[in-house]
Amino acid sequence: MKKNRYSNNKLNNQTVNHIHDKLSKGKGFQVKPPKQHKQPQQSKQPPVRISFLGGLNEIGKNITVIECQNDIILVDCGMAFPDGDMLGVDLVIPDFSYVEQNYERVRGIVLTHGHEDHIGGLPFLLAKVNVPIYGTPLTLGLVENKLREHSLINKAKLNVVNAGDSIKLGCMEVKFIHVNHSIPDAVAFAIKTPGGTVVHTGDFKIDCTPISGEMIDLSSFAKVGDEGVLALLGESTNAERPGYTPTEMMVSESLDTLFKKAENYRIIIATFASNVNRVQQIINCAEKYGRKVAFSGRSMVNYMDVAKRLGYLNLPDNILIDIDMLNRYSPEQVVLVTTGSQGEPMSALSRMAYSDHRKVMVGEGDFIIISANPIPGNEKTVGNVVDELLKRGCKVIYESMYDVHVSGHACQEELKILHRLVKPKFFIPVHGEQKHLRKHAELAEFLGMDKKHIFIGDIGSTVEITEDGMKEVGKVPAGKVFVDGLGVGDVGSIVLRDRKHLGQDGLIIIVASLDVYDGHVISGPDIVSRGFVYVRESEGLLEEVRTLALNILEDCAEKNIHEWGIIKNRIKDEISKLISQRTRRSPMILPILQEV
Amino acid sequence: MKKNRYSNNKLNNQTVNHIHDKLSKGKGFQVKPPKQHKQPQQSKQPPVRISFLGGLNEIGKNITVIECQNDIILVDCGMAFPDGDMLGVDLVIPDFSYVEQNYERVRGIVLTHGHEDHIGGLPFLLAKVNVPIYGTPLTLGLVENKLREHSLINKAKLNVVNAGDSIKLGCMEVKFIHVNHSIPDAVAFAIKTPGGTVVHTGDFKIDCTPISGEMIDLSSFAKVGDEGVLALLGESTNAERPGYTPTEMMVSESLDTLFKKAENYRIIIATFASNVNRVQQIINCAEKYGRKVAFSGRSMVNYMDVAKRLGYLNLPDNILIDIDMLNRYSPEQVVLVTTGSQGEPMSALSRMAYSDHRKVMVGEGDFIIISANPIPGNEKTVGNVVDELLKRGCKVIYESMYDVHVSGHACQEELKILHRLVKPKFFIPVHGEQKHLRKHAELAEFLGMDKKHIFIGDIGSTVEITEDGMKEVGKVPAGKVFVDGLGVGDVGSIVLRDRKHLGQDGLIIIVASLDVYDGHVISGPDIVSRGFVYVRESEGLLEEVRTLALNILEDCAEKNIHEWGIIKNRIKDEISKLISQRTRRSPMILPILQEV
Repeated sequence: MKKNRYSNNKLNNQTVNHIHDKLSKGKGFQVKPPKQHKQPQQSKQPPVRISFLGGLNEIGKNITVIECQNDIILVDCGMAFPDGDMLGVDLVIPDFSYVEQNYERVRGIVLTHGHEDHIGGLPFLLAKVNVPIYGTPLTLGLVENKLREHSLINKAKLNVVNAGDSIKLGCMEVKFIHVNHSIPDAVAFAIKTPGGTVVHTGDFKIDCTPISGEMIDLSSFAKVGDEGVLALLGESTNAERPGYTPTEMMVSESLDTLFKKAENYRIIIATFASNVNRVQQIINCAEKYGRKVAFSGRSMVNYMDVAKRLGYLNLPDNILIDIDMLNRYSPEQVVLVTTGSQGEPMSALSRMAYSDHRKVMVGEGDFIIISANPIPGNEKTVGNVVDELLKRGCKVIYESMYDVHVSGHACQEELKILHRLVKPKFFIPVHGEQKHLRKHAELAEFLGMDKKHIFIGDIGSTVEITEDGMKEVGKVPAGKVFVDGLGVGDVGSIVLRDRKHLGQDGLIIIVASLDVYDGHVISGPDIVSRGFVYVRESEGLLEEVRTLALNILEDCAEKNIHEWGIIKNRIKDEISKLISQRTRRSPMILPILQEV
Repeated sequence: MKKNRYSNNKLNNQTVNHIHDKLSKGKGFQVKPPKQHKQPQQSKQPPVRISFLGGLNEIGKNITVIECQNDIILVDCGMAFPDGDMLGVDLVIPDFSYVEQNYERVRGIVLTHGHEDHIGGLPFLLAKVNVPIYGTPLTLGLVENKLREHSLINKAKLNVVNAGDSIKLGCMEVKFIHVNHSIPDAVAFAIKTPGGTVVHTGDFKIDCTPISGEMIDLSSFAKVGDEGVLALLGESTNAERPGYTPTEMMVSESLDTLFKKAENYRIIIATFASNVNRVQQIINCAEKYGRKVAFSGRSMVNYMDVAKRLGYLNLPDNILIDIDMLNRYSPEQVVLVTTGSQGEPMSALSRMAYSDHRKVMVGEGDFIIISANPIPGNEKTVGNVVDELLKRGCKVIYESMYDVHVSGHACQEELKILHRLVKPKFFIPVHGEQKHLRKHAELAEFLGMDKKHIFIGDIGSTVEITEDGMKEVGKVPAGKVFVDGLGVGDVGSIVLRDRKHLGQDGLIIIVASLDVYDGHVISGPDIVSRGFVYVRESEGLLEEVRTLALNILEDCAEKNIHEWGIIKNRIKDEISKLISQRTRRSPMILPILQEV
């Protein structure tokens, strides 16, 4: 590989000029060429440093830090949904400390596509550091919506880049390469640095017959590969799955079959709001069978608004109707496209299933298609929604009954093709849990890569890569930051531990007022419990608790024990023991003493 | 069908005599022939009534009530595991009110097999009504263990019946028909009543080459079918799956392949503790490859004890070792068979994965096989355990990487065979969620059954069946009774609602002592919070809460408002509003006032 061979590449100004063509409301966007940095002449190539703030050993909150010389760029800035044990947490974002600490060196964030696990963390990062953002038109359209909700749109520096174009960020040049995925306008990056080229696949699949746009730009990957690639960062979501992911086009046939089957029914289809191509196929089918289309669910309406505005939906005249107009048509004249394909409790489909939707009542006249697979962990909630719909007499198409869903991620054969084209010297599997990362690493080994050239990292890992080798060089701060309501990071392990305890066993509060002079009980002790037992049926037990507490308090007063810490601990210990003996439960015991 | 054609069948005494041959510790068992009831001569056949206390629209707590004339029998008495929203609940049992109310008429409980969802509710039922129990040797061995834990063994009336035999319970005669399932000694029932024969399949599959015992007794089903069957109650677990469930024997080949692959490793295999045949296959493989076998996990040890004692495990001499002896052998000399195949947090395999097992440390020398599929809802926890094991460097075989698991339930083709053999007039799908029941109903229709002859019920449904028709005749009490620690039924919807609220948002307690005369604040208000925010970082907010509470209390005192209900509601409302504005969260607000 030649030294500094990219240093005379200039910023391709074409790349950032499309914004006003594509986006009608481009207020928050700035067309500003990034700074050009001089490259020091070096005899040896500088190392490329890569740090992972998210996306390894987890699904979601993808964010990668790439450094060379004095420059840093970020690839994506996602969020994750909370696990079941993160009680009350709304969403999980990366720890941005490293970005904040090195703000001065950050030249920009490049975004692969508009899914939440790739852009959902942006408002929280931007609230701290105002880094310029680069992405394709649809991606930035979605980012714009998001930033508007967080009142961050006015100061954000959004720069539209089209697939095929390159931008210069400090000493690095980032080429946007078109890929196929379950949202349009997805790209991978070839990041040319003075230390060598790093390819980040983002999320991708190989679809030779996509619904809109082109097939993945394999020739660009080939070209980059032929020029020499130092390291590949490859997504691993489907690395466990053999073979190929079928083309999105396949869904068309199934939809057509089902539209025919459902000719006397109202059709309701649940899918991911972001899957614009899936919705396009539904619209195509609706047109063919003479049905109007309505959207239900806040995120479905939002996504479709952006997709329409930016020209990503091909809409026959007058095909769309407002959901309020549904009842003016007979069932066989409409299709309702809705959120809730994951059985999310507050989603439109769930509300329909549990008769809690203000505008749509479902029943025997409905033919419901769930055009999505359950994300691992959601199987049960999806199953519950299906059961409820069936109980209401709906026809329901779910799971693998028909081919109404395909994945957006590459399976093993597709991954192999990408590896073969890119021909990286080093490989780091990204985007996945440990099992996915391992499988992807095994796949690289199977293709002949030396085990030493593969690194399975974790969040916080930093590796340094040169032509001579790849080594882990330390850790950067990384973790899960919880967002709960307006609070970012104020719910931590102690709060979660208490929530878990309270949620499992409830609590018993013992309140007493003590004489400030001699410690004797003046009022109380009163016993209040929540989430422990049905109080009316357990009066005897709670009376026992009261008596015990009173005895302890009086005993302490007699013995001149006035330190509240000691008194409270005795109350906690002895009442816990009593409750455990009587019920084998361990509610939180909370003694509260007041001096009067 | 001839009238009363079963009335001259006598109790086959052979059926209850095997107990002392099979069970060495038969203390709790009673060999007592059930009462014979005289059959009134009727010109018309009496109806058969069937009520469902569990197992419909749910997975688990299977229990069916079958009535004819003055007699009642119960089929199974299971428990279910709590859903994610049943916080702190240990297990779920049926509502037994109907059985209690009709105790005098209950002639016995017949058990299909020893799985928890079929026998787990027995201790709770027996604590209320001491009904005689009939089951096969292994099933009763497991019931015996369970009742001993609940100190119920001494009064229980346990009667061993072998497959192929019949018992008379009141006017009904129950034939035990051998079936294949994922636990040995499983049976279906042909229940001959004066109103006609009811067949209950229990859980079953058709395995032509089972590991132990015979193939399912299809000829008995055929015979019963030829004699005429009024109604079939058929299990529906796999009714969505086309084709056949493979034979358990298939697992042997995969295990053999994996034992070869793992020749230099310690082998750890996680499977269901009750799957005696699976463990037998592991033992067979261990013998072939010269390995010792140890068991880990309380339920694994318990099940294997019973299986050994009753002769259901074929054990080569000296093959078993205690888990404490593991370290005296080199890794390639042992196999550890463990619980935890569902990723249960406290199970042996989970503890190993999280380095929390007192006796077993896992690492690069371990080859771990998860010989089970995740039960829907457990995918995520199983995945987490796999990830942790991989991080520790273990080789892990999971999901469908090898054929190391087969289901214990019949798929569609097997169900069809059973329907064809039994030839029922009426059909009720049982054991399953709505989607399973529907699929099974569709299958019966596909086989030519009139839709009117099929009933999809719910728990609490009662149907009455005669040759002339099947109709729903009302409801019996049925529901989910929660067991939490020693409490049965004392956790209800209010307690669960509070637990959910506390778990999601935590709580804020406002405590104050008020002057008994004028209502002014004497001490406090003190603010205590748990599970809300990290207190040290939110002192300002909590001080705001305190000030607001004080203002409200003093304002009430000034205005001569002394009704605590009113004061508390004002505190709740205004503090909720403040907290919501500041944090967009809604913790439980708990004002506690004391008079001094």
